[in-house]
Amino acid sequence: MEIPLDRDAVTPLYQQIQRHIAHLIQEGALLPHSRLPATRRLAADLGVNRITVSNAYAELEAAGLVYAQTGRGTFVSALPEVSCQPAREEPQSEWPLWQQALDARPLPFTDERWRKLLGRAREPDVISFAGGVPDMETFPVEDFRRAMQAVFHRDGQTALDYGPVQGYPPLRDAIARFLGEQGIAVTSDEIFIASGSQQALSLVAMALVRPRDTVIVESPTYANAIQMFKWLDVRLLSVSTDDEGMRVDLLEHLLKHHRPRLIYTIPTFHNPTGTTLSGYRRRRLLALVKRYGLPIVEDDYIGDLRYDGPREPSLRALDPAANVIHVSTFSKMLMPGPRVGFVLAQGPLLERLVAVKRQTDLGTSGLIQRALEAYVGEGRWRAHTRRVSRIYKRRRDAMVAAMARYLPPEAEWTVPKGGFFIWVRLPAWVSIGDLYLAAVERKVAFAPGPLFFPGTPAYPAFRLSFSQQPPERILEGVERLGEALRVELNRERPTPPEARRVEMV
Amino acid sequence: MEIPLDRDAVTPLYQQIQRHIAHLIQEGALLPHSRLPATRRLAADLGVNRITVSNAYAELEAAGLVYAQTGRGTFVSALPEVSCQPAREEPQSEWPLWQQALDARPLPFTDERWRKLLGRAREPDVISFAGGVPDMETFPVEDFRRAMQAVFHRDGQTALDYGPVQGYPPLRDAIARFLGEQGIAVTSDEIFIASGSQQALSLVAMALVRPRDTVIVESPTYANAIQMFKWLDVRLLSVSTDDEGMRVDLLEHLLKHHRPRLIYTIPTFHNPTGTTLSGYRRRRLLALVKRYGLPIVEDDYIGDLRYDGPREPSLRALDPAANVIHVSTFSKMLMPGPRVGFVLAQGPLLERLVAVKRQTDLGTSGLIQRALEAYVGEGRWRAHTRRVSRIYKRRRDAMVAAMARYLPPEAEWTVPKGGFFIWVRLPAWVSIGDLYLAAVERKVAFAPGPLFFPGTPAYPAFRLSFSQQPPERILEGVERLGEALRVELNRERPTPPEARRVEMV
Repeated sequence: MEIPLDRDAVTPLYQQIQRHIAHLIQEGALLPHSRLPATRRLAADLGVNRITVSNAYAELEAAGLVYAQTGRGTFVSALPEVSCQPAREEPQSEWPLWQQALDARPLPFTDERWRKLLGRAREPDVISFAGGVPDMETFPVEDFRRAMQAVFHRDGQTALDYGPVQGYPPLRDAIARFLGEQGIAVTSDEIFIASGSQQALSLVAMALVRPRDTVIVESPTYANAIQMFKWLDVRLLSVSTDDEGMRVDLLEHLLKHHRPRLIYTIPTFHNPTGTTLSGYRRRRLLALVKRYGLPIVEDDYIGDLRYDGPREPSLRALDPAANVIHVSTFSKMLMPGPRVGFVLAQGPLLERLVAVKRQTDLGTSGLIQRALEAYVGEGRWRAHTRRVSRIYKRRRDAMVAAMARYLPPEAEWTVPKGGFFIWVRLPAWVSIGDLYLAAVERKVAFAPGPLFFPGTPAYPAFRLSFSQQPPERILEGVERLGEALRVELNRERPTPPEARRVEMV
Repeated sequence: MEIPLDRDAVTPLYQQIQRHIAHLIQEGALLPHSRLPATRRLAADLGVNRITVSNAYAELEAAGLVYAQTGRGTFVSALPEVSCQPAREEPQSEWPLWQQALDARPLPFTDERWRKLLGRAREPDVISFAGGVPDMETFPVEDFRRAMQAVFHRDGQTALDYGPVQGYPPLRDAIARFLGEQGIAVTSDEIFIASGSQQALSLVAMALVRPRDTVIVESPTYANAIQMFKWLDVRLLSVSTDDEGMRVDLLEHLLKHHRPRLIYTIPTFHNPTGTTLSGYRRRRLLALVKRYGLPIVEDDYIGDLRYDGPREPSLRALDPAANVIHVSTFSKMLMPGPRVGFVLAQGPLLERLVAVKRQTDLGTSGLIQRALEAYVGEGRWRAHTRRVSRIYKRRRDAMVAAMARYLPPEAEWTVPKGGFFIWVRLPAWVSIGDLYLAAVERKVAFAPGPLFFPGTPAYPAFRLSFSQQPPERILEGVERLGEALRVELNRERPTPPEARRVEMV
């Protein structure tokens, strides 16, 4: 890091360093959770005493702009602290006062610096493993077009009318039949249709939790779920994960001491880690929530996209006590465009979901629901599912092979048995912000690990998605990623033998 | 009202009366805001002292089950008070504890008794003036089908992919052009697409208000807006309305003393009153919000459906200070099925809308947005708009003529110059709950006034919608309604010369 210092100025050197770094953070040039240079190294680079740099860092920490982690170094804070600083480039005076007041109440999830950086994954020539979406080329567009046409011919004007808020009954029937084949006994009365699984999740959360309630999530977990819960002003507690999914053994302590309102989990082909909760843990989890009397929201966003290994029954299928709220979607498997997801719910919760949905948007597009029903009812999508499973399996295999070949031994990962994601864990001294910049410079992108942690990241990691690139691009992208990783690993390895690895909590 | 009394029981007579009425309320047999019999009359019917009935009513009031209004009588309370009573018929023990706990935290808007009763408007043979939706027969289904086909052929798989959260850019362009013709200068960057205007409203509210903020609405106003604000735990203040719309002269007092976060208004063809805010009041309203520095949410849900009279420019068109957040939709004019609405917003608010939308559902169906763009871009919908305007104008004329002929002189209403609704105001002594029952018995239905008041109804009223019935059914329905009204007016007129009319606030 280069910092212009004026040794004749009245301003002490430590303040000059502090102000320069504060400016870089506020401008977004330094990313949240990226690591500042070690005090020893920066002092050497600038030709100042190490105490001077330490003092500058201490001031930055006191201002909430950075945080220190023992054995790892000093890191840039996430936005909420930063946004307190009056550092917006646009002239604010143009906006009416009530608009300016909005800026003083930042949303919990608008970290524009990450968003801007993530935008670079979409630049031309960049091989992106960042997105979590299916490959557009796999969409059954012609079949869906025909289904839509059939609906227009069959239903005429009715297709364009309002329908029941809970969802179009024949689509609910079709979902019930399909779930029955997966071992989930459910009637269409228990199925609630939402506009995609993101809406399904947010409606479930709105129906169940109130501000300052406690919710348990995995760490890491689905980034949009974290942001959605933060938006609802919920207190998030996290349970760490390993190769078998959520560490259910750590859960009882939290249930006993924090009285959470619900547990949110992605048991199958987890996002971002790709792992699947083992059968033993599934049963133990269900026993725990039964004992403590709280619901589990099971996000089964992609459970059907399996490549090998046995199928683990969903939590909902194993749950005789009606504690599982199963959320799923057609978006990941088929195509996101129609935006249809669903929830399995009963009793008072179901009544509340309908009420909240009515307030939210009066119901999901009836036309789309009818077209989807015509499409899934026809059964063509089973063949489609088999076809896309084969495509994605080949891509997973290509990525796993490329990773074994090109990634340095410091990187660790688990091979997923389904879904889209591989989670790569790195030694504690790596800065993911810096690695991301090194990667996009080499025209390859990933999803940065910090986005998936409900709090301070427990360790450096990133998520690779193999869904959107053909095998040859995967090979090339992973090779570039390996280069970036090697450079960062060498540049960043601390001079003491090895930094202490922080404990996962 | 018949109440079985046991004159030999230990339980005093007043308690027997109290318990019987409490039971009727909890069972839903007595509707919220329906009037209890006058103490004098009930005492005569039951053969007891009038003091006995008064004591029973006082106990019911103390329990929150009823409320008294000077000069009008005693009325059944709305649900929140009632729901505190443990009076659910289904066996609760079946549900897990967390489900039972949900019942103890009732939603602000699930008044199932009204909902059940409103369901009767959908029974066969009932001529319903209750709904606020367009007539299905008017949907341009064939044109829309062709637009959808064209999108499939033109865009292929892309049509089924995710799109920008703010909305499909060509649709935003088309909306900007269309609004430009209405005198609203706006670029497509300032247009935000939502899944219908209900979602647009709820996203705007979520982006702007926090729990316990104060919001000003008209009284009466759109029922779902009231419920949406209550859901967000907002404090609602109301401004009464007259034939020229909101009483803007009463507004400054509220702005000065309550520091509201925003004003929600429906200036054109108001729901439920059908009135249009006069040009003078529009300008005064804009000057007031400019002075007090707060935004107006302008719900222009149907401003384009005009039958006669000059077009009042929208608040957004008159507002150089960017204080107006304009919300509109295609649902009312074209067809609700696609569920597309939009908001005109800028600056920090627009950023927040995008962020909240992302949390809510990741964006409105891209397929539907593309189809709608193909449809409105083609210009066929202008001819369609003219055609449906003619249809609805005939229906309005039929309803106004029928009302003049069949409704008793005690009913008062204003002839709307556009939209779907006529608001009928009744003498203070009429119970709308009882009138509704009398009407559905005669196979005609309306939307009960109490649903449209943010607090205790200021006066008895109901809303008639002429959108869904052809002229001959309108004639027949209004005739039946006149009968019901006459019966209720005669039955309910109080014996003292005339009840004092309560002041509108």
